[in-house]
Amino acid sequence: MDIIEFFKLSAGEWFSQRTVHNLVSGDLQAGKSEVNVEVLGKTDPILIKLCEQNQVDSSVTELIGIKISWNGTINKEKVKDTGSTILIVIPNSDDPKQGKLLPDRGDGNSPKISGRYIMGSDDVLTLITESEGLYAEERFWYLIPNLRLRTSVIKKSNGFTLASFCSEIRRVKS
Amino acid sequence: MDIIEFFKLSAGEWFSQRTVHNLVSGDLQAGKSEVNVEVLGKTDPILIKLCEQNQVDSSVTELIGIKISWNGTINKEKVKDTGSTILIVIPNSDDPKQGKLLPDRGDGNSPKISGRYIMGSDDVLTLITESEGLYAEERFWYLIPNLRLRTSVIKKSNGFTLASFCSEIRRVKS
Repeated sequence: MDIIEFFKLSAGEWFSQRTVHNLVSGDLQAGKSEVNVEVLGKTDPILIKLCEQNQVDSSVTELIGIKISWNGTINKEKVKDTGSTILIVIPNSDDPKQGKLLPDRGDGNSPKISGRYIMGSDDVLTLITESEGLYAEERFWYLIPNLRLRTSVIKKSNGFTLASFCSEIRRVKS
Repeated sequence: MDIIEFFKLSAGEWFSQRTVHNLVSGDLQAGKSEVNVEVLGKTDPILIKLCEQNQVDSSVTELIGIKISWNGTINKEKVKDTGSTILIVIPNSDDPKQGKLLPDRGDGNSPKISGRYIMGSDDVLTLITESEGLYAEERFWYLIPNLRLRTSVIKKSNGFTLASFCSEIRRVKS
């Protein structure tokens, strides 16, 4: 699977169950969320704007962008967790199994983050994002087209601090 | 990393935190465990016996065996979870990145299970075990030598039923 196919397959409504292991304290946090993933067209104004901010000409560059929106709760319904983000991926022209990310938090005031992806030969997608003092590595893979798993780890200057796991089931319309 | 190196690196004492997502009901189960992993010598009587049971001549076959023991609790200290298992891995002679498993539950009355492994180019180890009506796939990888992650999924005749995640931190002796 290439990165474009991988992201196209992510489009739709998902039920996501998430647990976070605090690697320092041993604490556990759990959450559930409805997640919507939308593939952005190349003429989408948000996509064009983000590309311009990053000096990328979206009309000639091969890329794919998705908008991820979530609406959930953390720790047994106590805390609401909603938001959205845009993720734009640009495959390397000489090796499309790897490339860079143009991440954004949706408010136009992104922190300085550098991101890249690696699409493994086993169809596991790894996303790596780094900013000052922070390293995050996420792995995504499909078990079947309607079920995927996701792990992530966060590393700060004092070492790995969090590891999280999501199981995501596609909401199939009847 | 090859499979032998991977298993040698697993030797020692680990603190394991585990969460299990029920993909059918949405329920969550959590557990914590102390895990001890011991590499078995090629002259270990248990290793020799298991090989004999499986018509494998341990004196001439390249293999590695480990004994995994755990002592933990499930769901906030309520249920004790202790046990041990032996895992013996035999690399394919023509392609050691893949091979078979000789699993055992330690009581000599193993169910009919067939198992195999794939060592990925990204150093992720996948273990696949199958018995009648049951398919289990586990993935293991090290973030650093003292921290590793593990995911597993269980598939029954009605589809994928469980997905679990472990973060495992090595107990470093001071």
